Amino acid sequence: MLKVTVWNENRHEKKDPRVKEIYPDGIHGAIANALSTHDFDVRTATLDEEEHGLTDDVLNQTDVLVWWGHLAHDEVSDEIVSKVSEKVLNGMGLIVLHSGHFSKIFKKLMGTSCDLKWREAGEKERLWVVDPSHPIVDGIDSYIELQQEEMYGEHFDIPAPDELVFLSWFEGGEVFRSGCTYRRGNGKIFYFRPGHETYPTYHDENIQKVIANAVSWAAPTDHKRPVYGNAQPLEAIKNQEN
Amino acid sequence: MLKVTVWNENRHEKKDPRVKEIYPDGIHGAIANALSTHDFDVRTATLDEEEHGLTDDVLNQTDVLVWWGHLAHDEVSDEIVSKVSEKVLNGMGLIVLHSGHFSKIFKKLMGTSCDLKWREAGEKERLWVVDPSHPIVDGIDSYIELQQEEMYGEHFDIPAPDELVFLSWFEGGEVFRSGCTYRRGNGKIFYFRPGHETYPTYHDENIQKVIANAVSWAAPTDHKRPVYGNAQPLEAIKNQEN
Amino acid sequence: MLKVTVWNENRHEKKDPRVKEIYPDGIHGAIANALSTHDFDVRTATLDEEEHGLTDDVLNQTDVLVWWGHLAHDEVSDEIVSKVSEKVLNGMGLIVLHSGHFSKIFKKLMGTSCDLKWREAGEKERLWVVDPSHPIVDGIDSYIELQQEEMYGEHFDIPAPDELVFLSWFEGGEVFRSGCTYRRGNGKIFYFRPGHETYPTYHDENIQKVIANAVSWAAPTDHKRPVYGNAQPLEAIKNQEN
Amino acid sequence: MLKVTVWNENRHEKKDPRVKEIYPDGIHGAIANALSTHDFDVRTATLDEEEHGLTDDVLNQTDVLVWWGHLAHDEVSDEIVSKVSEKVLNGMGLIVLHSGHFSKIFKKLMGTSCDLKWREAGEKERLWVVDPSHPIVDGIDSYIELQQEEMYGEHFDIPAPDELVFLSWFEGGEVFRSGCTYRRGNGKIFYFRPGHETYPTYHDENIQKVIANAVSWAAPTDHKRPVYGNAQPLEAIKNQEN
Repeated sequence: MLKVTVWNENRHEKKDPRVKEIYPDGIHGAIANALSTHDFDVRTATLDEEEHGLTDDVLNQTDVLVWWGHLAHDEVSDEIVSKVSEKVLNGMGLIVLHSGHFSKIFKKLMGTSCDLKWREAGEKERLWVVDPSHPIVDGIDSYIELQQEEMYGEHFDIPAPDELVFLSWFEGGEVFRSGCTYRRGNGKIFYFRPGHETYPTYHDENIQKVIANAVSWAAPTDHKRPVYGNAQPLEAIKNQEN
Repeated sequence: MLKVTVWNENRHEKKDPRVKEIYPDGIHGAIANALSTHDFDVRTATLDEEEHGLTDDVLNQTDVLVWWGHLAHDEVSDEIVSKVSEKVLNGMGLIVLHSGHFSKIFKKLMGTSCDLKWREAGEKERLWVVDPSHPIVDGIDSYIELQQEEMYGEHFDIPAPDELVFLSWFEGGEVFRSGCTYRRGNGKIFYFRPGHETYPTYHDENIQKVIANAVSWAAPTDHKRPVYGNAQPLEAIKNQEN
Repeated sequence: MLKVTVWNENRHEKKDPRVKEIYPDGIHGAIANALSTHDFDVRTATLDEEEHGLTDDVLNQTDVLVWWGHLAHDEVSDEIVSKVSEKVLNGMGLIVLHSGHFSKIFKKLMGTSCDLKWREAGEKERLWVVDPSHPIVDGIDSYIELQQEEMYGEHFDIPAPDELVFLSWFEGGEVFRSGCTYRRGNGKIFYFRPGHETYPTYHDENIQKVIANAVSWAAPTDHKRPVYGNAQPLEAIKNQEN
Repeated sequence: MLKVTVWNENRHEKKDPRVKEIYPDGIHGAIANALSTHDFDVRTATLDEEEHGLTDDVLNQTDVLVWWGHLAHDEVSDEIVSKVSEKVLNGMGLIVLHSGHFSKIFKKLMGTSCDLKWREAGEKERLWVVDPSHPIVDGIDSYIELQQEEMYGEHFDIPAPDELVFLSWFEGGEVFRSGCTYRRGNGKIFYFRPGHETYPTYHDENIQKVIANAVSWAAPTDHKRPVYGNAQPLEAIKNQEN
């Protein structure tokens, strides 16, 4: 059974009664509850726990890590970021949600600023499926509509995605590459845009389905981390120097 | 259970005793036998059957189609090719093997000549995994070595693959993009190079594993073929002409 | 100097006074006039000319071909389509505009249905630059706005573009991959969405700039068509069969 | 005229008489001399200069930066790496050569370990062109052969390249993705494998041609760095919260 850890910075929930009302169990709780209805072994971890809840033991027990952060990206320790990055290169799946675009771990794995346009105006978002063959859109119609969301607009400063799965239309006139896959080392990464803390996005059945699909897709492959470094020849070399 | 049809032109086996000796059940038989050890519902179809064994009924019962052809690409009827192509756009997976690079169905879906360099000299091939995160290399080591194979060399006139999974090294000095994925409409395609009729390649355990992995990967997603054509607006349009 | 041929089916212009009014020299004339302000050697060709104006001589004198068609895709002869396709594989650039998505040549080179959603409602389109590093957006701002255009919406049934340059937002609620590059053989292809015959799109300075940039980008590389077929080994082969 | 800065760590040349003999003007000198025969304005910079020769003034005068490093990646200051990275996101082209795969700047922009297999055995390398349409292979034959080179072998731990231009065959049995393009922000990056310090690789006419082509290809596009951050709506929003 796939082992999933849902990580949340869990600060909005503590500070803002509106957020607490929408997500009484925290954003991590809402996502974990939704994932638990699938055949996953789900746990949660949050910023203010010891080692942000991401101890070696937890990371070693994690096949796919889901990441939500916003206010406190800088409080995530560089050491934990390095460990998570190393785990991804070793095959752990990583699902980065919404404002996680600015997390240390996403920026480190992308190598770009990951900057974008944004606006909080409770506007309509429509996420169009542009790759109907992808397992991440299994069971999803031609688009997902969210009545109120924060806008994220292009240009989104990311490397061109390996696969582009969703494109968003926003009422205020912008578009956005909302569902993007990347492969880094042995690991698979999915960035999924929606999920502002003041809207009930993670209670939306389609959004939950996409996240669950993404978790399955990002499952580690049974493949050892390749051997790097000095290598003996596999064939005789004629022109040898010495 | 995933329904797999293994299609083979099955001509070498009838003409050439060497091939018959290596593949007494035909190339399709060897592949089907290997796939049957997995949780797949496997059948075979061959060129000389009625409608090449690919009746509407068979195609409608096929989730993933495996394709091997060489001598008789031109004998495959355009009507069947159109049906198979349409099925792929509707979500059927397609695994194209070796000399299938020149099949009508592969050329139609690629849009290029699919030409390449080749040589029959029984030389060594080493297929290097270049995407260790991909489910197609699950359980595969850093490379697969085949003692005798036909050489296929670059330039391979295909569109740049959506994902490049294997690269081949050949004893005679060439390289080749040996494992390539493509998405077309709702369907997923994997081209896999090895498998010349005069070598026991499809009896190789690793080659069998890659084909089985590819079949799983190419399984149709639960996603309706998108609706195309004239569409009513989803939002009010101010600047309407009339 | 780069030799450019602008091909237009030129039927709307003959039938529809509105189109004739907007494009008195034809759509081909408008595009050719705009390109002529650059350092290109520009000519035009139209459907009703002998061999659709695309004789061997013209094709041999063409570095980049611009293609606009709509009503009469089926009247383009398969022989000419094969010749153009062959020229592209040999290095000729191809710029496919708007309703050319359904041209025989584009569908042949893509291998998919190239179908899409559409609506003629004179609505606003905003084309967002999603790849600011690309020479095709040289001199273009963060987006291009067109007050009235036909809508094309996702899902657009094309292979995932090699490079995605523009994304369109439409007033009626859809999005579209509006600027897509592809490489086929030695040739470079750019699909650019805007340009409905009843709107003055090709008089727009930014649209003209994009088309000119695309022509420059699609210029043939000095590289011979690779040699295909049987090849002698470049290195000694030990395991030779005989 | 395109302004090119060739950066070299220039340590082997100081320590190792063999290297000094092959590259009396340093590796940077050899590359700069070759580039100077083209229509480029070329300068050099080296590690031991003030600010590694990459002062703000030099960086502001650089359209494309060529990078060679090996022994002393760690001595490159993080501040300079940040500046170079920022310049790339703002449009400066970057050509990373050979052992530069392990430079701080390349690893930062890739987000992976950039590790690989290697062997110094003076073996033969053959670089096959796999994208004949690409301007980087302008004037290059179907392959480039180098009689003696260091081997770099897969798996190369990089993100899948945006474009794969060269694949290497090595005598000892390995393959390598040897010519890879990436886009990051407004900038274009080309990684090119050959160039071990103890071989006369940068005196090879074809290698020089590829580097010159890459410099031209990586030229900045006239496109402002996109505006990021909070954005006013371009269209009226009905569902506004307040």
